Amino acid sequence: MKLYQKLANELRNHIQQGYFQMGDKMPSVRQLASQHDVSISTVQEAYRHLEMESLVEAKPKSGYFATPNTNNHSLPEISRPPQRPMEVSQWEQVLTLLINKDDKENIQLQHAMPNMESSSLKPLLKKLSDLTKHNISDSLTYGDVKGALVLREQLCRLALGFGCHLHPNDLVVTSGCQEALSVCLRAVAEAGEIIAIESPSFYGSIQAIKAANLKAIEIPTHPVTGLSLEALELALDQWPIKAILVTPTCNNPFGYTMPDENKQKLYKLAQSYDISIIEDDIYGDISYQFPRPKTIKTFDEDGRVMFCSSFSKTLAPGLRVGWIAPGRYRDKVTHIKYVSNSMCPTLPQLAIADFIKTGGYDRHIRRSRQEYRQARDHFIQTLNKYFPAETKISFPEGSFLLWIELPKHIDVVKLGQVSQQNGINIAPGTLFSATGKYRHCMRLNFSEKDMRAREDGVRKLAFLINQQEEELKQVSP
Amino acid sequence: MKLYQKLANELRNHIQQGYFQMGDKMPSVRQLASQHDVSISTVQEAYRHLEMESLVEAKPKSGYFATPNTNNHSLPEISRPPQRPMEVSQWEQVLTLLINKDDKENIQLQHAMPNMESSSLKPLLKKLSDLTKHNISDSLTYGDVKGALVLREQLCRLALGFGCHLHPNDLVVTSGCQEALSVCLRAVAEAGEIIAIESPSFYGSIQAIKAANLKAIEIPTHPVTGLSLEALELALDQWPIKAILVTPTCNNPFGYTMPDENKQKLYKLAQSYDISIIEDDIYGDISYQFPRPKTIKTFDEDGRVMFCSSFSKTLAPGLRVGWIAPGRYRDKVTHIKYVSNSMCPTLPQLAIADFIKTGGYDRHIRRSRQEYRQARDHFIQTLNKYFPAETKISFPEGSFLLWIELPKHIDVVKLGQVSQQNGINIAPGTLFSATGKYRHCMRLNFSEKDMRAREDGVRKLAFLINQQEEELKQVSP
Repeated sequence: MKLYQKLANELRNHIQQGYFQMGDKMPSVRQLASQHDVSISTVQEAYRHLEMESLVEAKPKSGYFATPNTNNHSLPEISRPPQRPMEVSQWEQVLTLLINKDDKENIQLQHAMPNMESSSLKPLLKKLSDLTKHNISDSLTYGDVKGALVLREQLCRLALGFGCHLHPNDLVVTSGCQEALSVCLRAVAEAGEIIAIESPSFYGSIQAIKAANLKAIEIPTHPVTGLSLEALELALDQWPIKAILVTPTCNNPFGYTMPDENKQKLYKLAQSYDISIIEDDIYGDISYQFPRPKTIKTFDEDGRVMFCSSFSKTLAPGLRVGWIAPGRYRDKVTHIKYVSNSMCPTLPQLAIADFIKTGGYDRHIRRSRQEYRQARDHFIQTLNKYFPAETKISFPEGSFLLWIELPKHIDVVKLGQVSQQNGINIAPGTLFSATGKYRHCMRLNFSEKDMRAREDGVRKLAFLINQQEEELKQVSP
Repeated sequence: MKLYQKLANELRNHIQQGYFQMGDKMPSVRQLASQHDVSISTVQEAYRHLEMESLVEAKPKSGYFATPNTNNHSLPEISRPPQRPMEVSQWEQVLTLLINKDDKENIQLQHAMPNMESSSLKPLLKKLSDLTKHNISDSLTYGDVKGALVLREQLCRLALGFGCHLHPNDLVVTSGCQEALSVCLRAVAEAGEIIAIESPSFYGSIQAIKAANLKAIEIPTHPVTGLSLEALELALDQWPIKAILVTPTCNNPFGYTMPDENKQKLYKLAQSYDISIIEDDIYGDISYQFPRPKTIKTFDEDGRVMFCSSFSKTLAPGLRVGWIAPGRYRDKVTHIKYVSNSMCPTLPQLAIADFIKTGGYDRHIRRSRQEYRQARDHFIQTLNKYFPAETKISFPEGSFLLWIELPKHIDVVKLGQVSQQNGINIAPGTLFSATGKYRHCMRLNFSEKDMRAREDGVRKLAFLINQQEEELKQVSP
């Protein structure tokens, strides 16, 4: 870790622990340089990063002032799903969500789509356009079943950023992270076997479990520290679980990042029960922390972690470029990838490899991190302003998704139907469970560029929630 | 059927049945017009089509002369695979074949890659490039899980050409035909169940059976009429077969097109045993017949046929655009497609839809049909000239692939290793069986534009075959 990073981390901790409150003057540059025995420019670099994270702001001729996030809302509680393996249901609802996308006039708060209007994406699009013009023949033939080598090399470079030393030969490029997860599940488990997942969990993973004829056991999950290791251990004692599928960094939908210590403990637990881990890191690069958090794969000693990621949330989902570092399952994963669809289209892979190599990816991530963080703070303020006082809201440390728990009597499935007719699409909580729990919850995104539309959507949603409450009162006065 | 098509079919039959031999003068235009009571232009249109098929040639001021194909070589015999379900092996060999593709200097006779240098492909590539330039935002977001509607509409139009009345809502676009086949297998059968296949069969289908943990039973197959219906019926009596996976039109690797009558009988058989059919029509559009042959799906009354196709062999495999008409399995197929990789990239779909709509696809197919037919005749002549006299060669009625049976003592796996070192890649027959039969066989393509390279490859292969025979004689004199 570089000196400025160390210093920035220290200052960040001080702000987050409340030593510096909103508007407090921060230590001067000279003072810190002298205290920590580092150069002036090192301190300036540290402050520049905290500024990008919106934790401080600079005032001309006065220095830096703290602007901590006001996380003063109630967080959701740890989940309590039934502790036995279940058949997955809810597909009809997921399909409805997917189809609603055509509803283009509506405010789209339901999907996990990144902001794709950022100017920092332009060099990538330019490259893609150039390749289509000048290298079209590369897009016509079958490419390597494992994906373009130039991209796999760049993926290894990215992986160094979270402490993983991978080799291009050990990677398999996939058609998005959805394919990565689906292939890994098929590589690791056979029909009827049990997969442990977080609860709530991404519906795409849950439905992939269903499609592979597997069963899911949902493990209690804490909105700040993630999967409960104690609950997982109890489940491992009781059931012949084959693998754990987790999103420990910038979790979807809860937003937490599991502490490094817990990631390592989870790995050790998998080792002692000799099971595999499928790690979904799709949002990992847009953690608000810099450098980005470590992964479970970082601690992998024996290849039992199958690491899955993609550029769908960092760049654009339509590119359909994801990847797997499958560890000891490499051969089986390659086979399943081949039979699934032979290989991935080549040009998007070449364009992304170039974008990473020339520094465009880092620049874009830096910018996204800052934008999403600001959007989160604004969105939470908006929700606090309009939603019922008892509402619990997650506090994501990355990505652009929020989890909301409304009062228990609110039916969000019904709310979603009404809100859709009123121009707002939402993702009801039931999608995020194998068996339709979380009916009073929803997931919303804050990635759409238009803050006003978002605020408008929240206001209307609040009105509809209120309407539902009134109706309930009339039924049972 | 139009008048000129009817007349062309009749004349084609007469030529193929030997009424007109090489160089014979064909009936004059006036004579046919009067005999059949049709216009002069109808007869001219019929002759134009026969000319495109290289069945006749026009001589100035003298009229048309027959130029039938000289199919005077020995055909392979009907296959005799063991009549019991088997676990699939051979993956290591398939992987070797896939990796050999990087061997770019070699003459590439091993893969099923169409000729992509044809000028009739240019409007498609232009459209793709224009879309990337002007509609890049369409390529960024998630599209419809079933694929772009404009493409599904055009697919319905193409399907009319083989007598299928489909609805866009009933189609699912896939990442090539490989994904289509893989998804259908998973939709129709569960781990341990049995799938009947032709023998020999495309290795991608066989490996998809393996990846879905299914078993394959290989059914004896005739090199001209296809799958033996008698053998299939015996197998259906004896084993709990779940589905049949067949490529009845321009079969890979045998090249036959099952007669319409057999297609219908196969469908009736599936009905009476209440099993499903997965029909792979990937080469159907490049049948040398015009109009192209019917499909099994054409006879489907109750949705038990899952029809799979793609533009990988007609346009370019790198586009990764295939499709399924899944009949009664629509919902399950949509689910498996979604969990497999969410959806297919949008721009190639839009470009292909436009290419079909504006007539470019028909033009390109017309041209491909003629080119591949000529290439086949030339390739067979070359093989007859250089290969051992006992060699048996298939006589494909479409596509660009030939199946070759060498004398039984020749080891083609070994031959393939030696030929690769000598600059020629081939696909050994063992890949086309679940259990490594056909060790004395190989599949070669005749789609590479360069006829000279192909002839060169055949000559060298013949030399290496001869060398292997000499070595065998020395070992056992």
